[in-house]
Amino acid sequence: MAQRTGDLHPSSIRRMMGISKRLIMEGKTVYELNIGQPDIPCIPIFSEAISSKVREGHLNYSPYIGETYLRETFSRYLNRYFDRQGTSHLVTDTNNVLVTCGASHALAITFMALCDPGDEILCVEPFFEPYKGLLAVSGGILKPIPTSAESGFALPSSEEIEKLITSKTKGILYNSPNNPSGKIFTKEEVTKLSKIAIKHNIFIIADEVYREMVLGNQEAFSLLQVELEKGEMEKFKHRIIVIDSASKAFSVCGARVGFIVARPEVIEKLSLLAFHSVASISDLMQFGVSAAYDHVFTDRTYFESLRKTYRERLDSAIIAVKDFLSWAVVPKPNGAFYLMIQFADVEDASDFCLFILEKFNLGNETVAVTPA
Amino acid sequence: MAQRTGDLHPSSIRRMMGISKRLIMEGKTVYELNIGQPDIPCIPIFSEAISSKVREGHLNYSPYIGETYLRETFSRYLNRYFDRQGTSHLVTDTNNVLVTCGASHALAITFMALCDPGDEILCVEPFFEPYKGLLAVSGGILKPIPTSAESGFALPSSEEIEKLITSKTKGILYNSPNNPSGKIFTKEEVTKLSKIAIKHNIFIIADEVYREMVLGNQEAFSLLQVELEKGEMEKFKHRIIVIDSASKAFSVCGARVGFIVARPEVIEKLSLLAFHSVASISDLMQFGVSAAYDHVFTDRTYFESLRKTYRERLDSAIIAVKDFLSWAVVPKPNGAFYLMIQFADVEDASDFCLFILEKFNLGNETVAVTPA
Repeated sequence: MAQRTGDLHPSSIRRMMGISKRLIMEGKTVYELNIGQPDIPCIPIFSEAISSKVREGHLNYSPYIGETYLRETFSRYLNRYFDRQGTSHLVTDTNNVLVTCGASHALAITFMALCDPGDEILCVEPFFEPYKGLLAVSGGILKPIPTSAESGFALPSSEEIEKLITSKTKGILYNSPNNPSGKIFTKEEVTKLSKIAIKHNIFIIADEVYREMVLGNQEAFSLLQVELEKGEMEKFKHRIIVIDSASKAFSVCGARVGFIVARPEVIEKLSLLAFHSVASISDLMQFGVSAAYDHVFTDRTYFESLRKTYRERLDSAIIAVKDFLSWAVVPKPNGAFYLMIQFADVEDASDFCLFILEKFNLGNETVAVTPA
Repeated sequence: MAQRTGDLHPSSIRRMMGISKRLIMEGKTVYELNIGQPDIPCIPIFSEAISSKVREGHLNYSPYIGETYLRETFSRYLNRYFDRQGTSHLVTDTNNVLVTCGASHALAITFMALCDPGDEILCVEPFFEPYKGLLAVSGGILKPIPTSAESGFALPSSEEIEKLITSKTKGILYNSPNNPSGKIFTKEEVTKLSKIAIKHNIFIIADEVYREMVLGNQEAFSLLQVELEKGEMEKFKHRIIVIDSASKAFSVCGARVGFIVARPEVIEKLSLLAFHSVASISDLMQFGVSAAYDHVFTDRTYFESLRKTYRERLDSAIIAVKDFLSWAVVPKPNGAFYLMIQFADVEDASDFCLFILEKFNLGNETVAVTPA
């Protein structure tokens, strides 16, 4: 088998999922907090749209770049999202959008497009564990940009980041709001990474799947909102790749619909990789997701109520952790929907998570959590 | 950008689709015969299952190997299909099955698993054009096993095929029933390819997505039906990869659900590539497809009526072609749902197809066809 198969392992998130399913089958009650799978029902208009469309009885191949109406709807949603904030932003047009089989597929084809074997992508820590494997498939290597919990995961200086750049570096990747830390990258931080990318003529890839999952008053700052002087802006436009997904925003992880936003020339190349990996995305699912974005375009109450739900859950979780685990360090996340908990006395997070899942037993109950 | 992006081009099938959509928008009537997209409605039970499931309002991540119930249902369907024919066959079990995002994704991850850059896959001509690009993504190279229309696309001798094998060869790929020729590979031909694969310790990959699309009285002979003496059989089991899909069988091309059947160790490796390319397959679509396979397990009338429809269409098409294009050569296909037409006086098939689509105009009507 090919070399790349040696670099791939089940992610710890998915490994926990497997063990936890087995324990549940065996009769243990497991509260599954180990995967970003909302228990919240999907946005109702999605179900309605799917249900009426599927009755027509035709499920067709889609253009491999995605359905035009969805690309148009998603670009309108993005523009409206930024306009509402009153900030300047790059205007997204239909031809800036590629529809993918979720954000994972969006990342997989981005890495395929950028990396020959041995090429490198810098990635700000902490990061979503499967990034490594998604990159390994193309033969690329993930080089972490180190940060520390103590400093709130603040970025190192530009000089320190630039030291990591070699002739093999093809891009810088970051995820904001961040899975797992909940950090929202500030305007200054996103601008700093953007300037480094322009200077070294490499891509900057922003994973913004948690854009709508804001837990405080600070909205996420998008790569599309970076302001630069005119000359830099021209270069910048050609260097950006924004990853998005309908999964978390509308609680439709099982729809498998994601997006890439980039320049039309970049979209063109990426779309060929989309075709040569999955042929096309489900036309039925695109129809449902388009109805969802159309809905929130006029009516923000869905996201407002979603945010309220997650904020209440976060407050309860933090109170509970502080009450019962007073020695743990629990920084309050600004976005996404994860809680990172630090135990000074735990040596190996993976061993600890496995212990909690398999060995810990309180009236035949336990929780599944994931090492960060 | 990575080298592989230079090897990818829109397939001529998809290029024709784009031009044809544009002409339709401009008001021309185009009969689109250029893509394997049934106009037949999907199997009704699929719509019913989707419609009831989506109303529950939960769309979740699926295990990346696929939902257990679908893997089990699909393996039962396969076993029953062969049992009904009364032939010996390899018994497929749940752990022999991986669910993929259509057959294209199944092939993409197969090539990813087998090929390092420069590795080769032999492929029997004529073949589905996107095979080349699907292989190019992994860095692999497609080496055709030449056949000729005159001999009914009969396989060359084992010796001639073996001459094509080098230290870089990782597998032999064939598609039966064949797109585009409609050829059904005989028991002897499939056995011959299998013995070559065993002898050279390489994989044999059978694309069987048109299994149910049989246009005559000859059922398709599956790679899973090969009979060998015991020692060979043991080696053979470890070397087979069967590709299948729900798309054509149930007219659900937009569901994006396909399958790989192989040994559990091979499935394990391939499933990691599935995870690191799309994370998982839509749980909703898997539910619908499982209902479809469950249905045909007890009731074959769906496939019988589908075959009848395609046979009637084929007969009409052949009569029409012979009436109006008496100088064309039109071999009758045994399977799939394509008609290959040979014009002795056409020099370049692509140019001819483009001419018919864009320039030809009979009362503002034309047909879209694809170069074979």
